[in-house]
Amino acid sequence: MEKREIIIDLLGSDLGPEEMLEGARLVLEEFPNIHVALAGPRKLIEAAGLPEGRWRILEADKTVTNLDNPIEAFYSKEPVSVFKALEEAGRCDEVIGLINAGNTGALFAGAIRFLLADKSVRPCIAAILPTAQGGFTCLVDTGASIDCGPQQLVQFAHQGSDLMRSLYKLDAPRVGLLSNGAEPTKGNKLVKEAHALLAREDGINFVGNIEGNKTLSGLCDVLVCEGFAGNQVLKNSEGMAVNLITEIIKYGKMHNQPAAKEIAGYLMSRFDFASLGAGIMLGTKKTVMKARGSCNRTAVLNAARILVNLAENKSFYESIH
Amino acid sequence: MEKREIIIDLLGSDLGPEEMLEGARLVLEEFPNIHVALAGPRKLIEAAGLPEGRWRILEADKTVTNLDNPIEAFYSKEPVSVFKALEEAGRCDEVIGLINAGNTGALFAGAIRFLLADKSVRPCIAAILPTAQGGFTCLVDTGASIDCGPQQLVQFAHQGSDLMRSLYKLDAPRVGLLSNGAEPTKGNKLVKEAHALLAREDGINFVGNIEGNKTLSGLCDVLVCEGFAGNQVLKNSEGMAVNLITEIIKYGKMHNQPAAKEIAGYLMSRFDFASLGAGIMLGTKKTVMKARGSCNRTAVLNAARILVNLAENKSFYESIH
Repeated sequence: MEKREIIIDLLGSDLGPEEMLEGARLVLEEFPNIHVALAGPRKLIEAAGLPEGRWRILEADKTVTNLDNPIEAFYSKEPVSVFKALEEAGRCDEVIGLINAGNTGALFAGAIRFLLADKSVRPCIAAILPTAQGGFTCLVDTGASIDCGPQQLVQFAHQGSDLMRSLYKLDAPRVGLLSNGAEPTKGNKLVKEAHALLAREDGINFVGNIEGNKTLSGLCDVLVCEGFAGNQVLKNSEGMAVNLITEIIKYGKMHNQPAAKEIAGYLMSRFDFASLGAGIMLGTKKTVMKARGSCNRTAVLNAARILVNLAENKSFYESIH
Repeated sequence: MEKREIIIDLLGSDLGPEEMLEGARLVLEEFPNIHVALAGPRKLIEAAGLPEGRWRILEADKTVTNLDNPIEAFYSKEPVSVFKALEEAGRCDEVIGLINAGNTGALFAGAIRFLLADKSVRPCIAAILPTAQGGFTCLVDTGASIDCGPQQLVQFAHQGSDLMRSLYKLDAPRVGLLSNGAEPTKGNKLVKEAHALLAREDGINFVGNIEGNKTLSGLCDVLVCEGFAGNQVLKNSEGMAVNLITEIIKYGKMHNQPAAKEIAGYLMSRFDFASLGAGIMLGTKKTVMKARGSCNRTAVLNAARILVNLAENKSFYESIH
């Protein structure tokens, strides 16, 4: 079997490079045949005591924070970890994918520069979210395509369908379009135009508009939307899950109800957005996992699991749950 | 005390005019000094046996469904209940507000025709949502202003602030702007432009961008957004609440855990979007409550409670919870 390597960018996450390093350690423990390339400060990586012979360093001390301008960072003289990681991903055949938890704009700009699969197709970032029926819906785009046009939404439909075909072996993933009403006449200008295009697009199993309260109902396998709206769906779903789970824990304390803790724990395992892996960048030569800024070691491991599954063409993303 | 009347449009809701009539009955029971004017079919209303002397009929057999074109309905020869209700609200001084659960486009067109407060300001529809901290946030707009411009978002900030000042006696309601990141540089074109305007607007206590996972965190009293995005926040929050509550009930059955039902019931009372009253149209001469299509009798009663509170200049919207 050929060598398989995952690149992990240690810099840019809210919990710091140490947490990302712990994620790398979990990856090496779970996958004895996987190697990692770690982008970050040499000293820190060397001191981590990772298993010998299965890691290498992409030395970089600089990162791009959310307050930095990604384009300026691009012309920095010192090596910037995210660009170094992306460049390496494009150069090395054995790299099966990359994990990053930093500035999305920088990741996006770097991916376009170093990893673009097709020059006519802009990448986007999908998220795989748990549905009420126990399955998963691919939400695309989740924030990379702010203010895009209708043709790009059609592109998302293809990219999302391809992903769900390979992750879940679906023959014809059902594609829904996020709108403010289920009727085909509902939507903003962009959605109405995209609706007309999707309805006649070859190779797309279009099931029509999906309303905001049905986004995670399992009515579609791919939910297409422009990046600003998709970002709201992703983050609002997470926020609501956190609000309700917090409320249950408070209730349990107030009413001395020990079952509340058990139920909150169960919901956290079903709707734990922080550990759900990460967003998946589509349209790049290598799979790029965009973890949340607040991503923890489990999120790194989950992202690696998806990379390994995609590389092995397996359909058991469910296994991470 | 002068006569106070609430107009209830019986037609257009998913559960039918009978459910709206039951809502009217609850309103008359709870508020002995309130009268109602009921827009709908004469026979049905007369057969309901409501308390004598406190109701009248605005006869109309026709409604506007979600599949109808609101503008065509406007030129209908037969009386259409929503237009009849709005016209009456504009004409009669004793009317303190109106409740409708039908086609939003028709309600909006009719409100502009019959009830516009200021010809230069388009109305919008706000929703008062429960926050994690036990308070409420006014989300504005929730779907009436699809594809609007930045100046209109500034208008929403004023309209929402006015509402929260009268409902909660807040001196300087904190106004947040929905975006895809907390930093001022984040947002689509519309949000970036609105951010610059809001930051220098007099009479607005602007607290900056609010991310999707913080919409109901209680960080602001008024959350401003364009209608398509607001519709996503409103419906997605509701959908997630329903998903998690359903999951708790399933868990309780599967693990024979009776406390699950108790906890689900508690969450339903805290996050019951269906009974939370309704959207509130702002920018009209009379308060118009836009209930959901699926609104039940409790939602009608809650909407009436808000109308009465606003008319009496009270700040106890909390009392409905």
